[in-house]
Amino acid sequence: MKRALMLLGVCLLVPAVIFGCRREDVDTSGQPKEAQEESSDEGAAPAGGAVALSGSAEEIAASRGLSPTDIENAVRTYTPSGKLDDYVMFASGGHGGQVLVVGMPSMRLLKLIGVFTPEPWQGFGFGAESTMNVLKGGDTPSKPLRWADTHHPSLSETNGEYDGQFLFIGDKANSRVAVIDLRDFETKQLVKNPIADIDHGGTFVTPDTEWVVEGGQYAQPMGGGYAPLEEYNDKYRGHITFWKFDRARGRIDIAQSFAIEVPPYWQDLCDAGKLASDGWIFCNSINTELATGKNGPDGVNFESGASQNDMDYMHAVDLDKAAEVAKGAQTTKVNDFTVIPLQVAIDEQILWFIPEPKSPHGVDVTPKGEYITIGGKLDQNATVYNFQKIKDAITAGEWDTDPYGVPVLPFDKVVEAQVELGLGPLHTVYDDKGYAYTSLFLDSAVARWTLGGDYRQDGAEPWKLVTKTPVQYNVGHLAAAEGDTASPDGNYLVSLNKWAIDRFQNVGPLLPQNFQLINIASPGENMPVVYDMPVGVGEPHYAQIIKADKLKAFEVYPEVGWDPETMAKSANAITSEDQVRVERDGNNVEVWATAIRSHFTPERIELKQGDNVTMHITNLETQRDATHGFALSAYNINLSLEPGETETIKFVADVPGAHPYYCTEFCSALHLEMVGYMLVEPSQTAAR
Amino acid sequence: MKRALMLLGVCLLVPAVIFGCRREDVDTSGQPKEAQEESSDEGAAPAGGAVALSGSAEEIAASRGLSPTDIENAVRTYTPSGKLDDYVMFASGGHGGQVLVVGMPSMRLLKLIGVFTPEPWQGFGFGAESTMNVLKGGDTPSKPLRWADTHHPSLSETNGEYDGQFLFIGDKANSRVAVIDLRDFETKQLVKNPIADIDHGGTFVTPDTEWVVEGGQYAQPMGGGYAPLEEYNDKYRGHITFWKFDRARGRIDIAQSFAIEVPPYWQDLCDAGKLASDGWIFCNSINTELATGKNGPDGVNFESGASQNDMDYMHAVDLDKAAEVAKGAQTTKVNDFTVIPLQVAIDEQILWFIPEPKSPHGVDVTPKGEYITIGGKLDQNATVYNFQKIKDAITAGEWDTDPYGVPVLPFDKVVEAQVELGLGPLHTVYDDKGYAYTSLFLDSAVARWTLGGDYRQDGAEPWKLVTKTPVQYNVGHLAAAEGDTASPDGNYLVSLNKWAIDRFQNVGPLLPQNFQLINIASPGENMPVVYDMPVGVGEPHYAQIIKADKLKAFEVYPEVGWDPETMAKSANAITSEDQVRVERDGNNVEVWATAIRSHFTPERIELKQGDNVTMHITNLETQRDATHGFALSAYNINLSLEPGETETIKFVADVPGAHPYYCTEFCSALHLEMVGYMLVEPSQTAAR
Repeated sequence: MKRALMLLGVCLLVPAVIFGCRREDVDTSGQPKEAQEESSDEGAAPAGGAVALSGSAEEIAASRGLSPTDIENAVRTYTPSGKLDDYVMFASGGHGGQVLVVGMPSMRLLKLIGVFTPEPWQGFGFGAESTMNVLKGGDTPSKPLRWADTHHPSLSETNGEYDGQFLFIGDKANSRVAVIDLRDFETKQLVKNPIADIDHGGTFVTPDTEWVVEGGQYAQPMGGGYAPLEEYNDKYRGHITFWKFDRARGRIDIAQSFAIEVPPYWQDLCDAGKLASDGWIFCNSINTELATGKNGPDGVNFESGASQNDMDYMHAVDLDKAAEVAKGAQTTKVNDFTVIPLQVAIDEQILWFIPEPKSPHGVDVTPKGEYITIGGKLDQNATVYNFQKIKDAITAGEWDTDPYGVPVLPFDKVVEAQVELGLGPLHTVYDDKGYAYTSLFLDSAVARWTLGGDYRQDGAEPWKLVTKTPVQYNVGHLAAAEGDTASPDGNYLVSLNKWAIDRFQNVGPLLPQNFQLINIASPGENMPVVYDMPVGVGEPHYAQIIKADKLKAFEVYPEVGWDPETMAKSANAITSEDQVRVERDGNNVEVWATAIRSHFTPERIELKQGDNVTMHITNLETQRDATHGFALSAYNINLSLEPGETETIKFVADVPGAHPYYCTEFCSALHLEMVGYMLVEPSQTAAR
Repeated sequence: MKRALMLLGVCLLVPAVIFGCRREDVDTSGQPKEAQEESSDEGAAPAGGAVALSGSAEEIAASRGLSPTDIENAVRTYTPSGKLDDYVMFASGGHGGQVLVVGMPSMRLLKLIGVFTPEPWQGFGFGAESTMNVLKGGDTPSKPLRWADTHHPSLSETNGEYDGQFLFIGDKANSRVAVIDLRDFETKQLVKNPIADIDHGGTFVTPDTEWVVEGGQYAQPMGGGYAPLEEYNDKYRGHITFWKFDRARGRIDIAQSFAIEVPPYWQDLCDAGKLASDGWIFCNSINTELATGKNGPDGVNFESGASQNDMDYMHAVDLDKAAEVAKGAQTTKVNDFTVIPLQVAIDEQILWFIPEPKSPHGVDVTPKGEYITIGGKLDQNATVYNFQKIKDAITAGEWDTDPYGVPVLPFDKVVEAQVELGLGPLHTVYDDKGYAYTSLFLDSAVARWTLGGDYRQDGAEPWKLVTKTPVQYNVGHLAAAEGDTASPDGNYLVSLNKWAIDRFQNVGPLLPQNFQLINIASPGENMPVVYDMPVGVGEPHYAQIIKADKLKAFEVYPEVGWDPETMAKSANAITSEDQVRVERDGNNVEVWATAIRSHFTPERIELKQGDNVTMHITNLETQRDATHGFALSAYNINLSLEPGETETIKFVADVPGAHPYYCTEFCSALHLEMVGYMLVEPSQTAAR
């Protein structure tokens, strides 16, 4: 009765448009209907044909110095208020340790997903138990790790097509892999590779996402042991790790995962075969010279020592066979992780080497799986291998071996074509019109060239450079719309440029990177840059682009009391304020609390210094965008409670005082009044 | 001799375009000249008049469903590759704890500045001593704090105009203030307010940046003590804190700073007087009801209890007088911080209250300082006060007092106008045409209205609503170009909307915010939204917009060996590889190292487990954008070494192994070869 009066009281005190009263009658935004009309709808587009451009647009363009080409690019990319983008790009955040979500063609940053680095806006790593558990999964036995160098995001696939369910991404700096659930765009799992400090070639998935591939990089004694560099050839080793993905659980199954020991070359990027090459994995390598760097005045710098060979070795792995061997007795355990020893991999014909020119980076399987393209950064060609020829060479038994006894297939027998493109070929992606696109780091350009075989178009000469588009500047990877699938879309390509130099307003000595959107919808030489997107957070390495309509994210959590860790209703959820309670057992205090516009319940929590506090907070909201924050000053805690979410925090009440907790997300007109006090009474005996 | 041969060796081995050899002959980007031509220059704009729009642009617009208005908006905001934005907006990152730097009118995120939250891409808080010292400055005596709820960025001013030198920003969650140096866009100082856990009204600067103002928020026992809420009226207090800024040092001088004790209302936003009101500070407040929240089934929720009064109290502070008193014997010390007690503030006529309608948020001084506008969120008016009338009322001596004895000036005597605008007026900004703009949270609209007095334009009726533009949705603050200065620019206004709902592609239950760019260049009713910018990182509260040409950031650091902490050459810098060395003294090891494309020197560092390691690394580069990273796997260390920068890291070598360190910033074609090994030999006795 008192409760009912109180609610009534609020409604009388405050205009009814303020959230909280009669929510069912109030529009989510609390605004009158006319405010919801799209402001961009004045003068609707006709059903077909060209839009008559106003004289006003022409004058604006002139006053801003825009050329006709600029105007075309403007109308190709501008996305009016409320109109949705056609594609979504997932880009690594590089050493920001995050993932960037970008709408295309507008090239707007829709979200930064906290992955390896704590991110307080999302409540990722600031007390929310679901996220603390995720971060702990990525720790080493001796150290918590709270940043990463994220490199290669990989969307989950079904039958070689992006299915919009999960995103994986690797951490080069500490050899880790993350799993993001695309229902809520949150990170669900970090796994630390127990056998290595570092990787590079991760992540890449197999066509049905059974395996997530992580190639190594700088060789180390396997498992993190110590050995002097004088014993490099004998004691140091590389790895390629295969993480088993359990799609039903949405988690990597570490017990079913394994690695293959490989020679101490520096493994680099990988790609999974598909269709014609399904069941195989291809990784490239550098430093087949086994350089160990410059020691004081002696020796040779790595940049020189690791760049001397004309050919490095592509590693081709028979994954189906490896997975069988991994279940058997020929494996060893390194830090409790299953490893196929190098000699076993050789004996069982799991591992094959293929010469590849020179300091390669990208290794990119064509959409149907018949070819693999290598870009050797110190070469001028894209080198294309034919998978059938690789199989034939294996069958023919004509191979040499490297110093470790790994069979090396003859280059001339397995290569299909070499296409001269320019300086610094790095990474190749594909479209739907029989073209490949290769980034040229040193040329600062993107090359379009024709594929042969079944990709050959009428009248097109195969394996031939068509055109190059200059980019600004020094492009690393490329991303094409649905480009890593069995059926690329074409239309758009993004050039992930490493240097921006003069492209943007000066913001100090640390410059943004530059994502350039390239329109590849037209054939032939017409392949213009249409948009420059500065990336002033992180340094993206790789990206994948999915059709937006494949993503089926939750708008709000399916029911009130949702635990984002289990993706099910939490046992600690409460679903109404009537269930709010505080229970004390000795110095253990447990609180079940709620948040709804515009108050927490309870608004007072009385503790004694030294209490062990567990607090479950449920956001009772069911309307889209009705997120509440929960900040507890002085305890480093901030939660982001999306509609329906339940979170748990645990802390020792070791700082006495009258501490406000408040909502950090501006949720309503009375948002500032959404506050409570946590009163921690000092104890004479407890140390402050 | 050996060295010279080696360098020659690299040049022979590797094409000369690769960085590192003969840098002076090689273009920064390593690319041929043609690659540097702007791709957008095909078809240059004529010198004057309208641009002839191509049929192609009209077809593209039609195919994308763009209306003529959309096309106008596209050409008004689209900024071609290499063309620079006209304005730069600095927005708080909300509970992301960062600052966002946005180019306008393109609305592109140029940079995210790490402020309170560690950010590894920038090397902020991941081992770099200069940044670790900054973060430590923001800690409490009992806890490191590693996130923040940033609210109000404030650009430094000279004569009431933005001078482009510094940016300040407050942390609501822990009552802290940050100083960012706009020469390198890096955070130089965090200060923790010793007397409070929490604030809201920070930061705002005085017209010559002598003081940085921080208003409090939720009242507490001053200094962080404990008192039960039953003693709220007597034991809890608010504060307004004045941080003294030492421009020459670029630091806040804590010893010269002070606070004023105020009653336990919840102080909120502040603004500094200027010109007519120079030397005064205005802050508003809520919860003059002294509500203490709902305790279990009893009591009244804050949202109701703190919303009952028709009037709250604007706090007007005579800062010149307060600064004098702060130097004298009437002050007290709370946690060693100077505080003017409430009674002293009353007795010395420092503090005045002015009734303000109802749950106000913004308090906004007009460009010339004559008026102060209040938006009461539960009111329908903007309420305008006349500063001369405030002074006259003080002189007249006609005031009441509040329960704490603070003089309350009569509303009717000091108000100039009340302008009916709509539901939820929140924050007001100004332009150059005599208009004010007020955000309406509940209406989801921006109101344009006419000022009176000297701002009145020919024929315009003063103090009158002109038009409202709907925004999507629920706008908090506004930012106008140069809007908080003595001479606003007009042209552009940004609506910082809290809810996005249906504006963007779905990225899960946590939605981006929506910055809407509004063109305010035309007078009267024409005030359209021209661009929607999703903000998917943090929740910006407030922003300021400066003319881009006022910013004079470094392109590279002025000399090799620059210490960003002291903004001078580091004593630990070395300027060539000849000076590289490792010195050991017992188990203390000190390393002086260098980075340049594409190697570190040294490439091997030999340690014993348990060594105390200090390492100074200098980036020898002098070319723009030639940043190197330095990641030390397994030690949670990542540096961002901008051209010329010297950084120091310190760590205990407690994890044995052969740990690679490598460059995390893709710097050259041989970037992957930029690596070294830190060899930590295990000790039998040292604990792992």
